[in-house]
Amino acid sequence: MSKQDDRKIILGIAGLGTVGAGVVKIIEKHKALIAARAGCPVEIKAVSARDRSRDRGVDLSAYDWVDNAVDLAEEGSGVNLVVELIGGSDGPALALARKALGRGIGFVTANKALIATHGKELAVLAEETGAPLKFEAAVAGGIPIIKALREGLAGNAIESVRGILNGTCNYILTRMEHEGLAFDDVLKDAQQLGYAEADPTFDIDGIDTAHKTAILATLAFGTEPDIENLPTEGIRNIAPVDIEYAKELGYRIKLLGVTQQTAEGIETRVHPAMVPTRAAIANVMGPTNAVVVNGDAVGQTVYEGAGAGEGPTASAVMGDILDVARGAEGPRLGVPATSLKPSNPVPVVKHRGTYYIRLRVNDQPGVMADITKVLAEENVSIESMLQRGSASDGGVYIVLTTHETVEASVAATLDRFTTLQCVLETPTMLRIEA
Amino acid sequence: MSKQDDRKIILGIAGLGTVGAGVVKIIEKHKALIAARAGCPVEIKAVSARDRSRDRGVDLSAYDWVDNAVDLAEEGSGVNLVVELIGGSDGPALALARKALGRGIGFVTANKALIATHGKELAVLAEETGAPLKFEAAVAGGIPIIKALREGLAGNAIESVRGILNGTCNYILTRMEHEGLAFDDVLKDAQQLGYAEADPTFDIDGIDTAHKTAILATLAFGTEPDIENLPTEGIRNIAPVDIEYAKELGYRIKLLGVTQQTAEGIETRVHPAMVPTRAAIANVMGPTNAVVVNGDAVGQTVYEGAGAGEGPTASAVMGDILDVARGAEGPRLGVPATSLKPSNPVPVVKHRGTYYIRLRVNDQPGVMADITKVLAEENVSIESMLQRGSASDGGVYIVLTTHETVEASVAATLDRFTTLQCVLETPTMLRIEA
Repeated sequence: MSKQDDRKIILGIAGLGTVGAGVVKIIEKHKALIAARAGCPVEIKAVSARDRSRDRGVDLSAYDWVDNAVDLAEEGSGVNLVVELIGGSDGPALALARKALGRGIGFVTANKALIATHGKELAVLAEETGAPLKFEAAVAGGIPIIKALREGLAGNAIESVRGILNGTCNYILTRMEHEGLAFDDVLKDAQQLGYAEADPTFDIDGIDTAHKTAILATLAFGTEPDIENLPTEGIRNIAPVDIEYAKELGYRIKLLGVTQQTAEGIETRVHPAMVPTRAAIANVMGPTNAVVVNGDAVGQTVYEGAGAGEGPTASAVMGDILDVARGAEGPRLGVPATSLKPSNPVPVVKHRGTYYIRLRVNDQPGVMADITKVLAEENVSIESMLQRGSASDGGVYIVLTTHETVEASVAATLDRFTTLQCVLETPTMLRIEA
Repeated sequence: MSKQDDRKIILGIAGLGTVGAGVVKIIEKHKALIAARAGCPVEIKAVSARDRSRDRGVDLSAYDWVDNAVDLAEEGSGVNLVVELIGGSDGPALALARKALGRGIGFVTANKALIATHGKELAVLAEETGAPLKFEAAVAGGIPIIKALREGLAGNAIESVRGILNGTCNYILTRMEHEGLAFDDVLKDAQQLGYAEADPTFDIDGIDTAHKTAILATLAFGTEPDIENLPTEGIRNIAPVDIEYAKELGYRIKLLGVTQQTAEGIETRVHPAMVPTRAAIANVMGPTNAVVVNGDAVGQTVYEGAGAGEGPTASAVMGDILDVARGAEGPRLGVPATSLKPSNPVPVVKHRGTYYIRLRVNDQPGVMADITKVLAEENVSIESMLQRGSASDGGVYIVLTTHETVEASVAATLDRFTTLQCVLETPTMLRIEA
């Protein structure tokens, strides 16, 4: 490796939360191993965080302390690779990214919001100045899925990527299924156990999954990251009864991020879905993440692992740092950033698929006729249908699954169901993902 | 990407079997996509195979034909990246590798025997001359597991790697389980269906898995590939009765390649094992491959996909070609080749684990006492034990699983069982992998 003899990676780490401290620990613990794998020494020069006095379980006294994170990328800092673990799509994270990449300094980040929102701008800048830009930790924690898509599967035209990308949601859905509990009860418990944030909106409303899915769509299809036009539903409205029916029908409910090539174009969406219990992704339980990629040459590959936490996320950050050390570059978002196409997403009403619909209706003569008439008129063909429950509380459930149809027809059907006198509450609809 | 404007990858492809033809097809089909992902054009200049007249389903007329594969790497060939798909640990594949790497020309191969046997020599040479050396397709087909270990998880001290690495064996074991058939019957059928070779030794005796496991051990632990000292057992002796008992005990039998850090050192071995049915790896069916990696930071990650075939293997080869195009280098075998340690494997008799033992015995008084006495004297502690079957054929089965013990004790136990008058045939032993 004679050509690398004079190389050295000199890190500036911005953000010293769990992941930042984890990165520091790994670099201190595995110094020799990391140098061997990098082909050159990897050292921390400077760190930055909001609160200097906080005990992070690591000794930071050997490193320069910088109050303003952006200063890590200033000329005098001596840093040649910035690791950004601050978070947030704007503010200091964005300022630091622009400063580092503008100066041709490498930038490694775990920040999905930043890449999903400003990824194109940053990649264009990085490719202009020749600065490395890496973000493995932004999606699916410790699973090297960014690398797999950008590099390992680069010889494929990607057909689809489907992922369980948020451990909090999968943990909640798993407990709802196993313990028969309601969403609110599991959420409360998950918050007490530290599996969910005090403000859980970002996770449970699918926003976190949407950021990750937007990044996967860019890598898979060479389109600009487009978080603005990404239809996003979370898991707040998943009821125990739907989990029960899913089980009875041979499915399990998972929050999925999906991006796929269709006849209409590229469809990218985040929503809870019914997946067949025999599918690999259906058997991913608790906080584990999983990604299923279909490519035209490779067929289906599946990746599973911890989606969050100190070790897994720090592992992904280290992978990026070592990539930069080895001199791996190439197009930052899979293809040259200036050639990224507008995302031009297929509206979700054009989605073709099969559906699960649950209605609560009055148990009275003629109900089934009313319902099947609407379905027939909207050209929605029934695959299976069952009626269940006593009418003691004045209503019974009708549950049906459809043959393949277009979502616009399902939406029209649901609208009409809502106006039927016999239908007692807003119908529930879940997409089925094969 | 201004610095890459003058770069171009000019390929010479040696070996035009299924995979070689697959690589040619992908390059022709995805020319623009590949150039975008590579950051530079990728072209085929020359090809080589034994039989020029054979129809391979691709038009090769635009490429130079070279009769002697080694000529692809000669000065006048114009080739700057050789793709070797000939196979075999020596012969033309090795000659071509030495020639290409010696001249500083990149070398991409799907050849597990070559890397498992001569990997160190070739990596040392590549690092001296600066030539890229890549072998993603050598292990687990389309699954980018080499990249994951060498790069994505490079920040981890690897604890263990376990894999289902041979699709033929997993296909046979799956059918034995699902259809209750004997090994020989399934093998015959698999040969007719093209899932097994006419001479299946390489697959079913574990040699193919051993080559792949040797490579994984090198990447995981920085040791020299050492196929010579790798204990290897195949699946020839797996009986339907063991598959039945496995099921009853909550296990499934899989042929595993395992390499793991233990208190004694690094243990690397290939053998059929009982894996708990809830483990991810137990649910990998048919010709699918899977690899489970445990790292000290990332925890457990799992990778699944097609382990062989035109598309998946060509996908892996393309990933390597694009890696070379993007200029990714770094230590060829994960750490600088001159720093690889001798493999110094822990002998399998020192393996600590739990075991499954099946005996056929005379159904007579005192048998259980004889058997439990031996176990007690060899310090093998019983976890579960069951006796099954009628004595109509003069024997019954005794099946037991052990608590954790050292393999030497199990071996001594089995030796002593064999000498017992009541034991009717050589005992069967399978390691249990948690």
